[in-house]
Amino acid sequence: MRSPQRLIVQADQIRDRCVTLTAEQRHYLYHVLRLKAGDELWILDGRGRRWLGEIQENTVKLLRADCPETELSTEIILCLALLKAASFEQVLQQATELGVKRIIPIHTARSLLQPSPHKYRRWQRILQEATEQSERLYVPTLGDPLSVADMVKLTPKGYIASLQASRLLWDCLPQMDLSRPIYLAIGPEGGWTESELAQVLAAGWQAFSLGRRTLRAVTAAIASLTLVSHYSERHCPTAQQH
Amino acid sequence: MRSPQRLIVQADQIRDRCVTLTAEQRHYLYHVLRLKAGDELWILDGRGRRWLGEIQENTVKLLRADCPETELSTEIILCLALLKAASFEQVLQQATELGVKRIIPIHTARSLLQPSPHKYRRWQRILQEATEQSERLYVPTLGDPLSVADMVKLTPKGYIASLQASRLLWDCLPQMDLSRPIYLAIGPEGGWTESELAQVLAAGWQAFSLGRRTLRAVTAAIASLTLVSHYSERHCPTAQQH
Repeated sequence: MRSPQRLIVQADQIRDRCVTLTAEQRHYLYHVLRLKAGDELWILDGRGRRWLGEIQENTVKLLRADCPETELSTEIILCLALLKAASFEQVLQQATELGVKRIIPIHTARSLLQPSPHKYRRWQRILQEATEQSERLYVPTLGDPLSVADMVKLTPKGYIASLQASRLLWDCLPQMDLSRPIYLAIGPEGGWTESELAQVLAAGWQAFSLGRRTLRAVTAAIASLTLVSHYSERHCPTAQQH
Repeated sequence: MRSPQRLIVQADQIRDRCVTLTAEQRHYLYHVLRLKAGDELWILDGRGRRWLGEIQENTVKLLRADCPETELSTEIILCLALLKAASFEQVLQQATELGVKRIIPIHTARSLLQPSPHKYRRWQRILQEATEQSERLYVPTLGDPLSVADMVKLTPKGYIASLQASRLLWDCLPQMDLSRPIYLAIGPEGGWTESELAQVLAAGWQAFSLGRRTLRAVTAAIASLTLVSHYSERHCPTAQQH
């Protein structure tokens, strides 16, 4: 039997075990998914909680809570250079599947795009859809874009991908403290400038390599997240409660 | 200084340290890359050899051989279900960056596409372009499509991704014999059917999991290749001669 469909709602739509649907959500349930009153579906708050619900006209009655553990116990934060649109969106989707907790767009010398509010809403929709598709309960958050200078000022020390680095990310894994958020920085297609890299390394970040082939930025981001998330999945398997 | 441009040629175009260019290659060099006689470029045979060459009208004179080691020492063969076109092509590109040696398209119950000869030529071009971009010297080969039955009959036992598996691919790595080709099978978006999976497991393949989140087939392929290629890069760093 097919698993019920999934709908992510805002926490403030839920009161007394009942979800008040927006017009857009009603349209989605009745006309896109072709559900009807009496049908069951999963309701998610995007912050780690899930319930089985039953549709009742303009509301969904919550029948029971059911929260499978699909979150990594380690919080992985991806500091991602503003790549060209299609590449950036591909990373948003795949990073969500791989369990990323937060994505912070980074302005770099070689990425000039300044995202519009429209673009920002589109990115949030991609994160939400990828969350539903990968059956996660938590929608990754999207930070405001930071400059490289602000990234090293406002975030803890992390790990930065660099073609010049000789140390494999694989060899950085055993030293990572998985009980704290792990920050990974991925540069633009043209790479970090020397001064950007120097600035980040001077702040105590560690440079890592992804091997002897030249990866595009998208692939570098996905490969880095794969290694850290699977290392966490293996060595720290029990997810925290959210 | 920018590294010279790269051109992959057929081995039989090279004679007496001189490459005879095709009309298409001349167009590419003179009109797309805007090079001219006297300019230098890298000539690759796509099978592991590279030379620095100098353009001389309709030929390129080979000045010296120069073969950086960018190949994995382990041969990774990806048995990839025929996904929908855009997804299949995305995997071709990213798998090349990650060092895959050969890709074999697999017909499955849930992937109906029968690739046309035109599609096949397009895929080979994608592999070649991704090879140039990732600065590999070896263009991954593309096998003829196999049924699941033929896959288990014609290839050595490998590892198959399955949502039902409990054993992480991470935990399969230490038992892999990196001196022999590693076969990885990735199913279609809808997953393997029960009978397909049973057939492959009965032939001695091992099922693996990629963690608690549901990955799309594209992400599953890239994550699997990342783990095996980086494990190989770490534990078996010296590439063999090709």
